[in-house]
Amino acid sequence: MTVIGIDIGGTKICVGLVDISGRVLLESTFPTSPRDGFHTALAKIVKTIEHVLSQTDKNTNAISGIGIGCTGPIDPLRGTVHNPYTLPTWDGCDLVTPLRERFGVPVRMENDADAAALGEYAFGAGQKMNPMAMLTFGTGIGFGLIVDGCIYRGVDGSHPEVGHIPTKLSEPECYCGMNGCFESIASGASVDRAALKIGLANARAVFAEAKLGHVRATAIVDEVMQATTTAAWTLIHSFLPERIVLGGGMIDDQFDYFANAIQQAVAKSVMIPGNRVSVVRASLGNLAGVVGAACLVLKRRQTGS
Amino acid sequence: MTVIGIDIGGTKICVGLVDISGRVLLESTFPTSPRDGFHTALAKIVKTIEHVLSQTDKNTNAISGIGIGCTGPIDPLRGTVHNPYTLPTWDGCDLVTPLRERFGVPVRMENDADAAALGEYAFGAGQKMNPMAMLTFGTGIGFGLIVDGCIYRGVDGSHPEVGHIPTKLSEPECYCGMNGCFESIASGASVDRAALKIGLANARAVFAEAKLGHVRATAIVDEVMQATTTAAWTLIHSFLPERIVLGGGMIDDQFDYFANAIQQAVAKSVMIPGNRVSVVRASLGNLAGVVGAACLVLKRRQTGS
Repeated sequence: MTVIGIDIGGTKICVGLVDISGRVLLESTFPTSPRDGFHTALAKIVKTIEHVLSQTDKNTNAISGIGIGCTGPIDPLRGTVHNPYTLPTWDGCDLVTPLRERFGVPVRMENDADAAALGEYAFGAGQKMNPMAMLTFGTGIGFGLIVDGCIYRGVDGSHPEVGHIPTKLSEPECYCGMNGCFESIASGASVDRAALKIGLANARAVFAEAKLGHVRATAIVDEVMQATTTAAWTLIHSFLPERIVLGGGMIDDQFDYFANAIQQAVAKSVMIPGNRVSVVRASLGNLAGVVGAACLVLKRRQTGS
Repeated sequence: MTVIGIDIGGTKICVGLVDISGRVLLESTFPTSPRDGFHTALAKIVKTIEHVLSQTDKNTNAISGIGIGCTGPIDPLRGTVHNPYTLPTWDGCDLVTPLRERFGVPVRMENDADAAALGEYAFGAGQKMNPMAMLTFGTGIGFGLIVDGCIYRGVDGSHPEVGHIPTKLSEPECYCGMNGCFESIASGASVDRAALKIGLANARAVFAEAKLGHVRATAIVDEVMQATTTAAWTLIHSFLPERIVLGGGMIDDQFDYFANAIQQAVAKSVMIPGNRVSVVRASLGNLAGVVGAACLVLKRRQTGS
């Protein structure tokens, strides 16, 4: 049994052929180019799936489903994209129906953070953990929660937005309407902005300079870590995960910083039974999105409703 | 089909006979007297169940289960009490096994906030809402979340402790190890403490004086409402409930204050699809605990695992 997993970000789209053990047999990546509009992107996705399938021994009928992890907000129940931030020309478009009609297999779409969390639960660093939380520190802050093997959903299939947990009540102002949100302090884009203000190139430079004792870089890192500890405290007391898996571009280089900040919250808490929260690095690497998307149709048992 | 529902608080224990439609047919209440020790309380519970059953036409065999909602922390999987704060002499005691052996029926125990939430979901103000959150403003702050008809659980069956969401990062210090927790500002006990500092008798007097324009009482109410708005923002963005049901002693008199504070967070949020969060008052009244406890054994479909 093989399926197609599609990882859609604001910058690039990756299409992969994935087998039942979560291995990516083939993959192909191309730019999202949101300015070209939804239909151009859809045509490219269809063509890439056909290309991937043509490279295998199997014909189109051999795949048993298509899973999509898409940068949100999306509506997983209707299969529509509602992301005016990074996919403006796709707003309200239905990605699921045309792929289902073209390939004649079940197609499911989820928020990319949920798909990545499901991938780590099924094949990566979160196996057998219940509940399992995944926090992604990339351009923004992503979050997914897997409970009893299913993606946690809110009303109307909505997706937790834990990047918008307030961690300070003063500033900075966040686009969500609140001040001092976790994401507006600790995301890659936020640290990039803070870097520019002190004459450094980006988030990576901030961490590098902080390690060398740069005072203002250290102050930024301290603030990011304080926000992370506070947000982790809230997440731990709300969701009580058995494990928190950390992923995303910032984690590749700075896992120790973020893991320590979260461990501080875990260690300090007296309300959690036996402090049973482990913090580990994601293990599926840069194909996690494709594997997670594939999980949406690979194992019905683990994908929830 | 009738069952026994037992609501155990730090002050009193209520035992009720509940039918399949959630009606309390008979009930009996007595003091918890935690100083007398666990075994005295257990003997009183057994005697009261026997008393309640003797008052009906049915014999002991007629009840099909016993549900217990107990002030936590408790371990719902093992049926043991771990509450050194209000039930110190019960610490580690197993309440489930002796009742199961004595009455020969299934016995289940949950945190009282979870049981109350299940009661409101099954028969009260949260029917058909998914997910449904219940927030209780009593001596402390209680919380329960019902997802797909089941109680949300963390690792090892643990219970969300949303009273310990930080809503300020400065003070007051909370017994949980964090500063500025929701519970340490907005619970009945916290407002009682704040009242004493300004020469007022209790929380009720603070709200009454604030309505008359008392400056320092108004400042306390404002701080409680700001903490409530901040905590609600976090809860809404984490759990995305369809409805928040408010209960507890403070809500009886001050529902409008707390509902408005939560509605402010709902109205301000742009991340929640269609702002689909309603805030309503709990409807099961002072027998909610008994009805909720009964639900644990009344409808297997709705009680989760």
